Amino acid sequence: MAFAKRTAQATNESLHRIFTMAEAPDSTLGRIEQEMSQNLVGFLNNHIVASNNALTDIEQDFICPHIPEQPEFVSDHMHHLLDKLVAQSVHTASPSFIGHMTSALPAFILPLSKLMVGLNQNLVKVETSKAFTPLERQVLGMMHNLVYHKDDSFYHTWMHSAEHSLGAFCSGGTVANITALWVARNKLLKADGDFKGITRSGLFSALQHYDYQGLVILVSERGHYSLKKSADILGIGQDSVIAIETDENNKIDCQKLAQKCQQLQEKNIKILSIVGVAGTTETGNVDPLDKMADIAHQYQCHFHVDAAWGGATLLSNKHKYLLDGIERADSVTIDAHKQMYVPMGAGVVLFKDPSSVADIEHHAEYILRKGSKDLGSHTLEGSRPGMAMLLYASLHIISRPGYELLINQAIEKAQYFADIINKHEDFELITKPELCLLTYRYVPKAVHALLKRADEEQQSLLNELLGKLTEFIQKRQREDGRSFVSRTRIQVARYGGEKIIVFRVVLANPLTSKENLQDILTEQCLLAQESEKLLPQLLIAAKL
Amino acid sequence: MAFAKRTAQATNESLHRIFTMAEAPDSTLGRIEQEMSQNLVGFLNNHIVASNNALTDIEQDFICPHIPEQPEFVSDHMHHLLDKLVAQSVHTASPSFIGHMTSALPAFILPLSKLMVGLNQNLVKVETSKAFTPLERQVLGMMHNLVYHKDDSFYHTWMHSAEHSLGAFCSGGTVANITALWVARNKLLKADGDFKGITRSGLFSALQHYDYQGLVILVSERGHYSLKKSADILGIGQDSVIAIETDENNKIDCQKLAQKCQQLQEKNIKILSIVGVAGTTETGNVDPLDKMADIAHQYQCHFHVDAAWGGATLLSNKHKYLLDGIERADSVTIDAHKQMYVPMGAGVVLFKDPSSVADIEHHAEYILRKGSKDLGSHTLEGSRPGMAMLLYASLHIISRPGYELLINQAIEKAQYFADIINKHEDFELITKPELCLLTYRYVPKAVHALLKRADEEQQSLLNELLGKLTEFIQKRQREDGRSFVSRTRIQVARYGGEKIIVFRVVLANPLTSKENLQDILTEQCLLAQESEKLLPQLLIAAKL
Repeated sequence: MAFAKRTAQATNESLHRIFTMAEAPDSTLGRIEQEMSQNLVGFLNNHIVASNNALTDIEQDFICPHIPEQPEFVSDHMHHLLDKLVAQSVHTASPSFIGHMTSALPAFILPLSKLMVGLNQNLVKVETSKAFTPLERQVLGMMHNLVYHKDDSFYHTWMHSAEHSLGAFCSGGTVANITALWVARNKLLKADGDFKGITRSGLFSALQHYDYQGLVILVSERGHYSLKKSADILGIGQDSVIAIETDENNKIDCQKLAQKCQQLQEKNIKILSIVGVAGTTETGNVDPLDKMADIAHQYQCHFHVDAAWGGATLLSNKHKYLLDGIERADSVTIDAHKQMYVPMGAGVVLFKDPSSVADIEHHAEYILRKGSKDLGSHTLEGSRPGMAMLLYASLHIISRPGYELLINQAIEKAQYFADIINKHEDFELITKPELCLLTYRYVPKAVHALLKRADEEQQSLLNELLGKLTEFIQKRQREDGRSFVSRTRIQVARYGGEKIIVFRVVLANPLTSKENLQDILTEQCLLAQESEKLLPQLLIAAKL
Repeated sequence: MAFAKRTAQATNESLHRIFTMAEAPDSTLGRIEQEMSQNLVGFLNNHIVASNNALTDIEQDFICPHIPEQPEFVSDHMHHLLDKLVAQSVHTASPSFIGHMTSALPAFILPLSKLMVGLNQNLVKVETSKAFTPLERQVLGMMHNLVYHKDDSFYHTWMHSAEHSLGAFCSGGTVANITALWVARNKLLKADGDFKGITRSGLFSALQHYDYQGLVILVSERGHYSLKKSADILGIGQDSVIAIETDENNKIDCQKLAQKCQQLQEKNIKILSIVGVAGTTETGNVDPLDKMADIAHQYQCHFHVDAAWGGATLLSNKHKYLLDGIERADSVTIDAHKQMYVPMGAGVVLFKDPSSVADIEHHAEYILRKGSKDLGSHTLEGSRPGMAMLLYASLHIISRPGYELLINQAIEKAQYFADIINKHEDFELITKPELCLLTYRYVPKAVHALLKRADEEQQSLLNELLGKLTEFIQKRQREDGRSFVSRTRIQVARYGGEKIIVFRVVLANPLTSKENLQDILTEQCLLAQESEKLLPQLLIAAKL
């Protein structure tokens, strides 16, 4: 007992130290931190091991289901993390990892993130965030201005108004899209006469009251999967997300959209929202937003633009015309953790009308009191970190022209990559870049010419074999770990709308050079040669 | 033009530096970082200015709605942030700020957070998270084990199974609660015969198919507001959240709960979920979970436990009995950013049945393919940061017995505070601590005795005046900025269920000492004297 008491006392003191004493600079954690601070990319290069460990092997290091009964020294645990976690992470900042939307981050973000964590503010209410609340409202104002460019008096009136909001910060594009459609749904099915509104009475009573045969969301077939998820969560159902065909440039076919709207109206099925895509996840194309706004206006429905990826393009005076019409959207999603170079966890939804959030307001006794400026009264999330600070700092340090350069360079880089793919004998460009995304595939020279003059059946056979080859190359490249492109299947008009397996690249990392891009093609050609069966099979098929 | 080109070139180079060159150790940001690393609490003490600036004054610093056209030097911007943001933040780590659920963090969390941001993994898919995916699954396994303590073979089978999940990480308790009820809703209204299930066909068709007159959620009147928000988002409607009365200890009255279930069954209204609260936000009380599980079992409905606050108590062998019955819940919410001392943004929802997530699974062409281990196929959020790493590290470094000490001490501290409030002539303890929360109010000695023997009307008048006084003290204390307790209104049985304004404290910060608590009462007594009108008014009323 005396021993147990002494042990408790010792643990107690060591716990107090954990909360008050920093790691010494020469401790393991101190040294790691210094290494990261001085040269993050170098640190990641040194510690992330490019290995072809299968996920099932990695899982063996993360198998114990017991919370430890013995404390570990910080330095021991850091060695463990470096060895088992960091070494086996993905080098998202690498200039040769061009397969995803996560890029290198500006160096100043790291110490700033530490400051954010150290302050540990909770944005749900003013009581635990104070200056972070007006800061977040200002950042939302800046982003709103970027999209809607209202005059200064508009922002003066609404930016800090307790009962209004220009948008909401959230963890990412999915929550932003859900929030936008939640607002649209609650506004459409609002209180009316005896009916207390969907917020209080639910969807079933709402549809009965308004006598709608159903609600639908219209979006191009390239829309993000989060829209179906939103429809599920909001009780509308995934089948109510109607995919409208796209043209050969992956943009929604507005004629088909208008036809569908007309048909739905005739059936008394209410359109909850038309959703425009500004930067499709797979190909980076932007829908004709202005024309879509016309149609939404004609059918009096909510117009949402999912600009999670492409929204940052508005920072480029050169390219922002691509998003013309976005200023007519009722709501817009933009992810700051994508092309605004802020770390993971920073989504934004913006509302044209500052009173839109009235339809999703929630209050409670101890916080979010009516009339308070607590941000939590109109966000889907409750407690939230102060990520807005990182976007605020980036907007000031990089500034609009700095972002323009980053975006313009990314698009130029994608155009350059498209050029060298087009000139290369063994590749086929599938979708050309509008923003900084493109797709392509490996097509050996011998197959190229044949593919063009083949009949439908033969084309289909060749495409299947080419797809297998593309998949083989992509997997091997990922496993080898020197570089990474992603893979998807998209319908291609020139092959009669057949679904084709392609490489997908996103060229947003400012550190990616032309040499990196050339190297990736070289590596893929070499990998193709290693496909023992696929390439010969393809060449035989091509001779048929 | 040549000038513009040169400028672009210069900006270009400076942008490249931003992504590659760290701040020098002697730069402003470098020095700030060092200061934070060496002594976080000291840094916060130095830089957060205790001021009674009104929020409207602070807003003046965050008023510009334009994204800057000129880049700022990092060091200049840091001075700006220190001056305008940090100085005017809330000192959440202060031992005297005992009004909210945000506490001091262990020092090792700061450099680890920096590592997390530097790695910038995206947990939505394995491709951008690799080892972080099994790590998150392991942490979910450990938390699942804490709640459900299944045997090792259970975890061996399910922890890393592609088609299963023991839970989901998310940004916080609200998303965790929504996710739990989303699962419950989709499971209840699943595909059946011709009906394709709510996921595909929506809530309207689902209720028609199952012929339910409505769906309801039953929770005590102390339930968190996120449950009403969940009901709104999921299309069920806030009015379908039925508040069941609590007893004098703020625990749900199980007899009333059972009666309500019976009534609902007779009306063919389906109970979507019974929700138990393990640690109410306002008073920290825990519902009789085992009895609630009996009732949920009897009426064959989902049983969810919102243990956002109290879940961590399971780490204390001494106090975990308070949550007996939680292991019978179908789903459980726990916030790691509350009493597990992880920074903001770490919520967890756990599912007893690893196949529960099948009802909310989403797939897409380019990621989340069927059979993949991508975590994003069954989370509400899409892209997400690797917060699980911070919980993983804390579980290893602090360990279960370390957490037990923290939790036991917090509860002891609350009992100590209750004691000194009870002994103090000028205070009244309103709710005694079960976990480390309690509520109390200022009641001058002269009023104490009278309050007990007053008739209902007089009591009501006194309570109103006491409420105003409590509010006055709380606001002044917050404005003075040396310490902070929060404020709420709760029904108090001993005053005939009248709603009483009270101080609310949460004693989870390990740095809070007994002296801090004594000082807070002393400060409140002094502030009471400053209420020029309220105190005399009260004393006059008391003499009536």
